[in-house]
Amino acid sequence: MTRADALARDVADPLAFARAQFRLPEGTIYLDGNSLGALPCASAPRLAHAITHEWGERLIGSWNDAGEGHGGWVDLPARVGASIARLIGAAADEVIVADSVSVNVFKLAAAALALRPGRRTIVTEAGDFPTDAYVLSGLARLAGATLRVEADPLAALDNDTALLWLTQTHYRTGAVRDLAATTAAAHAAGALTGWDLSHSAGALAVDLNRANADLATGCGYKFLNGGPGAPAFVFVARRHQGAAEQPLSGWFGHAAPFAFEQEFRPAPGIERMLAGTPGILGLRALEAGVATFEGVDMAAAEAKSRALGDFLLALVEQRCPEMTGACPRSARGAQVSLAHAHAYELTQALIARGVVGDFRPPDVLRLGLPALYTRFVDVWDAVDILADVLATEAWRDPRFAVRQAVT
Amino acid sequence: MTRADALARDVADPLAFARAQFRLPEGTIYLDGNSLGALPCASAPRLAHAITHEWGERLIGSWNDAGEGHGGWVDLPARVGASIARLIGAAADEVIVADSVSVNVFKLAAAALALRPGRRTIVTEAGDFPTDAYVLSGLARLAGATLRVEADPLAALDNDTALLWLTQTHYRTGAVRDLAATTAAAHAAGALTGWDLSHSAGALAVDLNRANADLATGCGYKFLNGGPGAPAFVFVARRHQGAAEQPLSGWFGHAAPFAFEQEFRPAPGIERMLAGTPGILGLRALEAGVATFEGVDMAAAEAKSRALGDFLLALVEQRCPEMTGACPRSARGAQVSLAHAHAYELTQALIARGVVGDFRPPDVLRLGLPALYTRFVDVWDAVDILADVLATEAWRDPRFAVRQAVT
Repeated sequence: MTRADALARDVADPLAFARAQFRLPEGTIYLDGNSLGALPCASAPRLAHAITHEWGERLIGSWNDAGEGHGGWVDLPARVGASIARLIGAAADEVIVADSVSVNVFKLAAAALALRPGRRTIVTEAGDFPTDAYVLSGLARLAGATLRVEADPLAALDNDTALLWLTQTHYRTGAVRDLAATTAAAHAAGALTGWDLSHSAGALAVDLNRANADLATGCGYKFLNGGPGAPAFVFVARRHQGAAEQPLSGWFGHAAPFAFEQEFRPAPGIERMLAGTPGILGLRALEAGVATFEGVDMAAAEAKSRALGDFLLALVEQRCPEMTGACPRSARGAQVSLAHAHAYELTQALIARGVVGDFRPPDVLRLGLPALYTRFVDVWDAVDILADVLATEAWRDPRFAVRQAVT
Repeated sequence: MTRADALARDVADPLAFARAQFRLPEGTIYLDGNSLGALPCASAPRLAHAITHEWGERLIGSWNDAGEGHGGWVDLPARVGASIARLIGAAADEVIVADSVSVNVFKLAAAALALRPGRRTIVTEAGDFPTDAYVLSGLARLAGATLRVEADPLAALDNDTALLWLTQTHYRTGAVRDLAATTAAAHAAGALTGWDLSHSAGALAVDLNRANADLATGCGYKFLNGGPGAPAFVFVARRHQGAAEQPLSGWFGHAAPFAFEQEFRPAPGIERMLAGTPGILGLRALEAGVATFEGVDMAAAEAKSRALGDFLLALVEQRCPEMTGACPRSARGAQVSLAHAHAYELTQALIARGVVGDFRPPDVLRLGLPALYTRFVDVWDAVDILADVLATEAWRDPRFAVRQAVT
């Protein structure tokens, strides 16, 4: 495996065209798009237009008509949701953009309790991304429900389980759960499934409806390229929408928000998952981020990221024997996780050399491999630098041990 | 009262300087800044920099250091919160920017139930902005608490009342409640106060701490000029922060978000009011919006808006006898409300003539008077056009009766 091999694979890559849609800084090999997606070229002009024209010129009128012939701000959560739906195997009217993943976990888990009256337990996985269990515990305490955080959540399902809440792709290891099989197991126990797709949406060929999934949310700022802290999306299967009551019943979730009725009447469809006034600037940036997937087949994207990961793991095995693979060989998301006792310092040393990944406690160097803008030559060069950082022990420089607030 | 009088008052206006900070469209008299604040000149360049440089160039590194010498994105909710604190009479560490007003009402009301154990009733006002009661009802149902929506909420306080939730400035009438007296009455009943300051923050000289207020939230996109759907702010008095548990316990509210601990430990201070990852683009726009208040004394801003309203009401009395004042003469927010049986059509007819206000059911034409960019001559010209629309019955044009989605 030589650098020339990597370049040859890039030439043969059917998704190579997609990289031109992004602005990546010179001299950086960006392998952290699973934390913050890279900047699409369209984002800055889209936001400039939204600010100067939609806000500045049309002002409040943009709520009804933002002036480009396809509706007003009021429809933007549903419109951007519909554009995400294709990427996750959902119908257009099953997805809407709202709030953050954390807030949506709360809404969806509360909705699951409403959808499964008589059942009062939520089951989730120990060691998963913490915000899910944090929020589920907040809900359980408030609602008088039971939260079980289990090493083997499927084994914990019983006839009190209203909801099995899982992330499909594990944030640290990249391990991917089988959506359909897991959902079937939950349904067999009479429970609903709720999926955190933060590391799946835009990375894998997710097919929620083929899996018969019930509820899901996911991140707009990772593989969907929506910008820092982009709003999240919510999926509720159509069969559940009429009874999916959620307690963050703000005015944008009302059947008629601008009638200013005193009683809450939830919107009949997915709009009931909205709470307060949606953040339009974040939505416009997410719209531009999702648009980078136009013409992209998600099966091809998933296959490319897997090939990038396989290539990376093979190179590491060959050149960096100090690193241990901390991710599955198959059923792996668009990332590779490598363990090392000094993974924190290694991550910092790599960043100093222009290779941007991230550290995940206790000992993981995590490298994201989004299909739209990651090249095989980036992987080759990154491993080349990693091998050098290891061989020279450059990571022992004391400045790389200084802990940052955000790791 | 002549147009020359209005021009003379503008010349004498000590806040006239502030208008130069905004981009207002030619030919429009914008009297809807209480719905969507006008565009600050600084917003577009601020967002362009945040997108191109902070996101595009510095990428994930901006979470720790966004490159302008004052911290990273991770601190932005607190930093923008601190800049809002001055406008509402709070300490810098009592305010943070998070989510929407609707979501924050939920958090704060849940926190009030935690702060007043043994008390299970929330009291709020009938006829107020609907989202507050909608969300409170969602919380009450989930938590097994009681919500009372009362015409006279102060009279409804009893020894089961945990929280009196009110908006300080009524969205439709502009009537302003006395923060200190109302808070004292709630405290006398053993209840906490929670304030929706959406129509107060940036409009009035709010002094939460002088009033001994407990909890508050408010809108970033009205008088604070943060842009469409800007994030909201949350206030928790320092004395309550240690025990103010809120159930939307997402990772950004954790004491150590990036330690990825499995158990939720709330941040000791106001950060516990955060939930998910904050939307950075919305925060940057809000930061620019709040910065338009630099050098502005809120007592002067309140006095100017009141003078604008008095001027408007006097002109209407003189020139538009068909309109009925639907707002208090004193204790009024930075708006004027005028009733007319055909207020909807009138609002549309005014918009067609370049005078932008809004309609609030059933019969109110609402005109916002933000001190930073509204001139006395704008008020004079708006009433002049209103008088003409009434005299010519221009509002009878059938196209003005067509209902828009957002009114």
